[in-house]
Amino acid sequence: MKVDTKSRLAALRARMRETGAGLVAVAPGSHMDWLLGYHPHPDERACLLLVGPEKEAFLMPALNADGTREHTDIAFHNWSDDQGPDAALAAALQAVGAADARTVVLDETMRADFALLVLDSLPGARHAFTADTLGALRMVKDEDEYRALKMNAGIADRAMLAAFEAIRPGRSEREVADAVKAYFSSQGAVPSFWIVGGGPNGAFPHHQSGERRFEEGDAVVIDIGAKKEGYPSDITRMAAVGRAPEGYAEVHAVVEAAVQAGLEAARPGVKAKEVDAAARSVIAQAGYGDYFVHRTGHGIGIDGHEPPYITATSQTVLEEGMTFSIEPGIYLPGRFGIRLEEIVILRADGPEILSTLPRDLHIAKG
Amino acid sequence: MKVDTKSRLAALRARMRETGAGLVAVAPGSHMDWLLGYHPHPDERACLLLVGPEKEAFLMPALNADGTREHTDIAFHNWSDDQGPDAALAAALQAVGAADARTVVLDETMRADFALLVLDSLPGARHAFTADTLGALRMVKDEDEYRALKMNAGIADRAMLAAFEAIRPGRSEREVADAVKAYFSSQGAVPSFWIVGGGPNGAFPHHQSGERRFEEGDAVVIDIGAKKEGYPSDITRMAAVGRAPEGYAEVHAVVEAAVQAGLEAARPGVKAKEVDAAARSVIAQAGYGDYFVHRTGHGIGIDGHEPPYITATSQTVLEEGMTFSIEPGIYLPGRFGIRLEEIVILRADGPEILSTLPRDLHIAKG
Repeated sequence: MKVDTKSRLAALRARMRETGAGLVAVAPGSHMDWLLGYHPHPDERACLLLVGPEKEAFLMPALNADGTREHTDIAFHNWSDDQGPDAALAAALQAVGAADARTVVLDETMRADFALLVLDSLPGARHAFTADTLGALRMVKDEDEYRALKMNAGIADRAMLAAFEAIRPGRSEREVADAVKAYFSSQGAVPSFWIVGGGPNGAFPHHQSGERRFEEGDAVVIDIGAKKEGYPSDITRMAAVGRAPEGYAEVHAVVEAAVQAGLEAARPGVKAKEVDAAARSVIAQAGYGDYFVHRTGHGIGIDGHEPPYITATSQTVLEEGMTFSIEPGIYLPGRFGIRLEEIVILRADGPEILSTLPRDLHIAKG
Repeated sequence: MKVDTKSRLAALRARMRETGAGLVAVAPGSHMDWLLGYHPHPDERACLLLVGPEKEAFLMPALNADGTREHTDIAFHNWSDDQGPDAALAAALQAVGAADARTVVLDETMRADFALLVLDSLPGARHAFTADTLGALRMVKDEDEYRALKMNAGIADRAMLAAFEAIRPGRSEREVADAVKAYFSSQGAVPSFWIVGGGPNGAFPHHQSGERRFEEGDAVVIDIGAKKEGYPSDITRMAAVGRAPEGYAEVHAVVEAAVQAGLEAARPGVKAKEVDAAARSVIAQAGYGDYFVHRTGHGIGIDGHEPPYITATSQTVLEEGMTFSIEPGIYLPGRFGIRLEEIVILRADGPEILSTLPRDLHIAKG
């Protein structure tokens, strides 16, 4: 996606002034994608975009300089393998007016050795991560970002139908995951994850699809996502093989009520923790509080998981344009798990759900 | 690959005693793969294997606890999204006898926020990275690792032949890359990178394969790799479209002589920088020193790039069993680039080359 780097850097500098940050250091990854629409190949060589109060510069491995030059006009301070990065970093910090920065904002995803290279060159500086600067800006999506997420949600809906189609007794989780991946690929989307958890495996929230074969009466958690044009999808739905297991319907209804409570609570001006509380209290009141072992949701944008996180303690105030998941779940060890996940964009009057797929249990061929 | 965790932890502790490290903190990634043969799904939740002088424990996001339990018996200190990791980390450090560690070894690849979580909980502790502990151990491969690398090298040789076959005038770099990826996939190997740089694009060492179409007389750098059974491949060869460009043969001969000099210099007991110097001096003496802009090589194991790095300044003493690349190159802006890359394992009497493919220029259909 083409990015207006100049205006995004200006927005970042406004946040830096508000928060007192003297330097923002960004590694090749999604923060850089948001700023530049591009990042150089990430590897073990220190490569950092350094944003100072008025200027920005790259600490750049010489090896990547020419290739990166095709994508950006930002000044480079190159270092070669035999020199090491120290002198180039000192020059770059000087050039962006951050040699005396008192507060350094580090891209929290950067490698530990990059982070300590920066901190060791600014002795006494305080460190923070990007929550109040880059992270805050990235939470609110513009129209192009919304369109990319909506398109990906449509592809994921159809990939879910491919999963439903593939489930039957004797098939393995992996075979269903393969059907999902094949559908994503056929649409030009790169599969990101393909959780297919049948029967007791569904009770592990992050189960990796394996060789277990479906049996009549299994409940199946299907949580899938892929990426196209730099933006991801993420959806969870439930299927059952032939028929739902004993006691399933009651638990599904609780999770569905929790989703609806979360959707109802999500309004501009509300804190993220209130959305979590709304979903969580439905599950707790139904007596399943101990079996909802994760947060209610996460933001989604360039990264599949990004702020705002919808947790029990998050003070983040939700704003129009934020996109996030609402995905409560109940996991009953040895029996089954149930999770239902919607991705929403927050509008002035409440959340718009990106998927068009109902959240009902799909009964697959028995 | 099945891993003997007990003996690898014992070897790590011997290194910790030698180097005075009170704690080694390892994130989900390849250091953990080497120790455990497995790593939990890496995400933004702090997950760390903490190795103390006699005990080890996991700081574990509650969400991943059950799934990870299937793979390891190591004690977990779980934390949930609403509690945050601080208390669990303090308990884990206490449990492994590292609450007063003076020197902390950090997995250099871990996220910056994980690293600073650890360092902030051990005020005054010195930090180091894994070069003298885990990194040193991982450099020397055992027989199983050698077999995995050798198998992958064979697949990469055949993928290179697929690239040679696909090159012709009018085809794009991307189409050749697709042929390479398809061959890797057909062998059950997951493609890692597919640099195909034709004509002037070859002069960017890390060029990403694009839409440029080949023309008669292009030189083409092909640098490809994939991963199967947890171990990678990496090979670079040269092709020309119909015929080599003006002045090509002389430069290829210089790069070939540099490879041979590097191979000749690589012996147990020699420093890595001496191998770099041997290759580099051949190129410098031929007058192309300014056009060899990277190190001579890198180690290869679970990671495609890992120690030992074969650089101008590396004091690492090469040992029997180390595996690394020797890959000098000359990049002539606006004309072409030439790189030839072998992966070797160091034997008592010198390097064994894993590839069976000659380094000669391949003349593709004109």
